[in-house]
Amino acid sequence: MPFHEQPRFPAGFRCASRNCGLKPVDKDLALFVSDREAVAAALFTRNQFPGAPVILGRETIRGGRLRAIVVNSKVSNVATGAVGLANARRMAAAAAAECGTTPDRVLVSSTGVIGVPLPIEKIEGGLRGMSQDLMDDPLVGARGIMTTDSHPKAVSASVGKATITWIAKGSGMIEPNMATMLSYIFTDAEFDAASLDRMLRQAAHVSFNMLSVDTDTSTSDTCVLLANGAAGPVSEPEFQEVLTEGCIRMTEILARDGEGAKHLLRCTVRAALDETEARMVAKSLVNSPLIKTMVHGADPNVGRILMAVGKCFTATIRTDVTDAWVNGHAVVRGGTRVDFDEPMVRAALATEVVDLEVSLGVGSASATAYGCDLTTGYVEENAAYYSS
Amino acid sequence: MPFHEQPRFPAGFRCASRNCGLKPVDKDLALFVSDREAVAAALFTRNQFPGAPVILGRETIRGGRLRAIVVNSKVSNVATGAVGLANARRMAAAAAAECGTTPDRVLVSSTGVIGVPLPIEKIEGGLRGMSQDLMDDPLVGARGIMTTDSHPKAVSASVGKATITWIAKGSGMIEPNMATMLSYIFTDAEFDAASLDRMLRQAAHVSFNMLSVDTDTSTSDTCVLLANGAAGPVSEPEFQEVLTEGCIRMTEILARDGEGAKHLLRCTVRAALDETEARMVAKSLVNSPLIKTMVHGADPNVGRILMAVGKCFTATIRTDVTDAWVNGHAVVRGGTRVDFDEPMVRAALATEVVDLEVSLGVGSASATAYGCDLTTGYVEENAAYYSS
Repeated sequence: MPFHEQPRFPAGFRCASRNCGLKPVDKDLALFVSDREAVAAALFTRNQFPGAPVILGRETIRGGRLRAIVVNSKVSNVATGAVGLANARRMAAAAAAECGTTPDRVLVSSTGVIGVPLPIEKIEGGLRGMSQDLMDDPLVGARGIMTTDSHPKAVSASVGKATITWIAKGSGMIEPNMATMLSYIFTDAEFDAASLDRMLRQAAHVSFNMLSVDTDTSTSDTCVLLANGAAGPVSEPEFQEVLTEGCIRMTEILARDGEGAKHLLRCTVRAALDETEARMVAKSLVNSPLIKTMVHGADPNVGRILMAVGKCFTATIRTDVTDAWVNGHAVVRGGTRVDFDEPMVRAALATEVVDLEVSLGVGSASATAYGCDLTTGYVEENAAYYSS
Repeated sequence: MPFHEQPRFPAGFRCASRNCGLKPVDKDLALFVSDREAVAAALFTRNQFPGAPVILGRETIRGGRLRAIVVNSKVSNVATGAVGLANARRMAAAAAAECGTTPDRVLVSSTGVIGVPLPIEKIEGGLRGMSQDLMDDPLVGARGIMTTDSHPKAVSASVGKATITWIAKGSGMIEPNMATMLSYIFTDAEFDAASLDRMLRQAAHVSFNMLSVDTDTSTSDTCVLLANGAAGPVSEPEFQEVLTEGCIRMTEILARDGEGAKHLLRCTVRAALDETEARMVAKSLVNSPLIKTMVHGADPNVGRILMAVGKCFTATIRTDVTDAWVNGHAVVRGGTRVDFDEPMVRAALATEVVDLEVSLGVGSASATAYGCDLTTGYVEENAAYYSS
């Protein structure tokens, strides 16, 4: 994969971030700008209590064109009623004025505590003059959208003469469905809106939509892809391949930085009856608290793998042909625990990336889900998130 | 409710427990005996990797008659293949010989680590002479079936001239579905097998089947009801009422003793479109790690309640009529956070029993789910369960 060592922007994109007073000192406001109108596609949370920015974003993206994205962290502007929606519109208008465009060309995102009023005056104040700070470094913008993330997340890759850049945040309240946490993808390749939308859905299907930190689907999940065409047309299959690989890479980065996580956990299911069942079993594995704690403790309690497979009541499971591996070490054969080398499996579980593989032996479909271990850090962080 | 201060057995039931060498010192073997043949009904796990005792139990319960239940803890006899099933049969035979009955009148249960061979000789040895230890105290048997439970669990109540006694174990790998962890219910009331089965299903539907400690459905869940008829016939509606209340009480006891738990969490959903949706939303609330950690930290991050309601993608949710309460304090009205008295709600969350109530405002169905908070204790316990 042609990932760059240092993430950089495609031609025509820049970003800035600031502290506007929502957090004590850290950056809490980010602005991403394309110097020309970009074709855009987006996916949003399926949570039935979407935040005001998601409600507005669904309206905005219908135009299929964006010039800017404005994001604040700390307060999510969810469950804030009509005032919340009005505040999201004010945020779009302030960013549009700053970038010399119209509010319908600005996508708004907010992330943080649910149900607290958005301090819109602080955000409007913060946006003033912000276009003068615009820079070429994607990490600057990535830093402005962090909440409990331990580091800013940006990746870029080349595809033909074009570039794709992924910027994302998120570490808790993550089991996106038809979207992700906040994930912004920029490219200078040239595509129409329908192609962008199709490619984004296909990439998200096997990446962000297979990510779960804690089974809790956020009210703010947003994934946007902007293509400003500065590099001209690019082969669509080639673009799709790099787009998908980058989305998977960003998914792994998000999973590894799950709140309190020490391990990236990848659960792959093979030989399933169909893709739906493969995805269901992979998600069951990656979400099981007992598997997550097993990985955390590097404790080879591998029977839990069968438990998590078996609790998929509607999946086609044949207990006599189910096999399982931990980082390549066979631990279950034909539904029965193998007499494996325990210190070896313990060592495998202690590595930073843990791959659990299950073969169901009933078909040829497969799927991979991405998550992390469950640690005391997750509990401590979330027992006091609101107050801290 | 006519619960007794000290749990006692119905006429004709006794139990014993011993250490047979599976654990270093604690009791690891229990025997429950009816002095005459009892009519019996049972529910088992829906996990597709059921343990050998569950496979055998489904066969045994077809006869509708039981004289004894034999249970070992520490090793669950799951994922142990044909040898495991043969060992379960040997365990039934040994208990039958000890009680003077036939193996088809003995229900076998095993609980503990998955995928480890059952030390059947130790169990056979332990059973020898055990009928001489039989006692009237249900807590003696309850102690023999404990794994990570912090205390033995037994409850009894009167219904007419009959008695019902509930004995159960379980604190982790608990989200029973059509059954529970190990739960044994004894009565001297007289009923036929079909009535017992119907009443047990109805009671489990609103109690054990609404319990979740960690979303992980065990491979060993078993719930059995024995009626030996010693007290003669009893009013069925009256029996059903007490049976259900006792099952709910035992469900609360299991939830409160969830691994690492400090709180009993009850999530009630009202005004739902139908019972299926009410149950789905109640389970979503009780299973959300972010709600569980909020309760643990007594941190009134009540927006998470809306997140957990909204992630039920297929439920009928109207954001403008959704209300929520924490121990009776209104925190959400019409889908928007109420400006509530924060110290008051914080204090409510800090009580041992936390009731979250949500009214969906779209119908008249309701449901309650039972669970507990998520603590560092859960993580620590399960990161090293296999090795400890």
